[in-house]
Amino acid sequence: MARQERAIRTRNRILDAMASLFNEVGYDAATIAALVERTGLTRGALYFHFASKEDIARAVLEEAVTRRGLRPQPFKVQEWVDLGLLLACRVPREPVLRAAIRLSVDPKARRLFGTRWPDWVAVGQELLVEAKERGELLPHADPAAVSRAVVGSWTGVQLVTEALGDGLDLAGEISMLYQLVLPNIVTPAVLARIDSSAYRAERLLREETPEADDTR
Amino acid sequence: MARQERAIRTRNRILDAMASLFNEVGYDAATIAALVERTGLTRGALYFHFASKEDIARAVLEEAVTRRGLRPQPFKVQEWVDLGLLLACRVPREPVLRAAIRLSVDPKARRLFGTRWPDWVAVGQELLVEAKERGELLPHADPAAVSRAVVGSWTGVQLVTEALGDGLDLAGEISMLYQLVLPNIVTPAVLARIDSSAYRAERLLREETPEADDTR
Repeated sequence: MARQERAIRTRNRILDAMASLFNEVGYDAATIAALVERTGLTRGALYFHFASKEDIARAVLEEAVTRRGLRPQPFKVQEWVDLGLLLACRVPREPVLRAAIRLSVDPKARRLFGTRWPDWVAVGQELLVEAKERGELLPHADPAAVSRAVVGSWTGVQLVTEALGDGLDLAGEISMLYQLVLPNIVTPAVLARIDSSAYRAERLLREETPEADDTR
Repeated sequence: MARQERAIRTRNRILDAMASLFNEVGYDAATIAALVERTGLTRGALYFHFASKEDIARAVLEEAVTRRGLRPQPFKVQEWVDLGLLLACRVPREPVLRAAIRLSVDPKARRLFGTRWPDWVAVGQELLVEAKERGELLPHADPAAVSRAVVGSWTGVQLVTEALGDGLDLAGEISMLYQLVLPNIVTPAVLARIDSSAYRAERLLREETPEADDTR
């Protein structure tokens, strides 16, 4: 058990280090040599966990669609909002999640590995379809179109917030995004009971039990 | 005059070709050698117009903040919407505009040249401040925050729409984005008179006189 735990830790250390390289220099310029230097691990140890750089990139994208911190809520639309708030809270701290976005906007990496956006759109759409069946959404709100628009918007707000710097906080910017779109999607009675505040995700993650961790 | 016109044409041909290379292989992998091959021009001709690859990248970003097709409208908020609709119409056709986005999301290019997002945020904010002074916006709409959110959202919707493929049309997706946010920004009386349809930009560009072309 201790040995297995150590192996998982090493694997995560490799993933984090390579993800940071992807973020700093881009997919093409991130090399196994730089990874060896950064982690201090031997090539043997690296290749025990991953066959190649491509393999690490695939593992990074594998982790990108995560529901960590998400719990059942009285309103399905709250769960949909929580997904985006949780990610906004985690992305600035977790290089692997940032790298997944980076790889998705890199022409070469995108050609090799595709993106996880179709999966995110599907996850959001599913929650919004349920929300609509329960009468939480306004009649004209189209779950597929709304999910697509918000996956796109979320991604762009992350990229632009990161580039603007300027002391901007992603959780705050994403909270603003939901406050801008929610009144056009959700019925007023439900809207009044939805929490889209910037500090909500922090609380959800704190309350999470270690066993509920579905990803790392 | 004819000679000057030919020079402008050659310059634009180089810009378009290098922009396409940036889009296809990314900033790092796009080389002057590939540009020579693609344009059929001599290195001498290239270096007459641009000193280096960096110089071409700067010229690409130079063209990114464009008001082509924009004309005074009865409502300032219509001009703000028009900016985004016009760009959505032009980006799929103009490699230089697409390359400006590509360079902005590339870690190396961003470090070298920055992005034009702060300029876009400023342009949008200025229009929204005027709109607010004229009473077109709802009291709680904050021009700076709204402009930032929509520059981010616009960018992400472009990136995700391009990646999803699937017959999605950027003009339609961006029109949807405005329809999602406008009711929370604009007063109802003004909202009823704002055109955010997907085909509006096409018409604005068609009506434009060649003299009004402020960019190319």
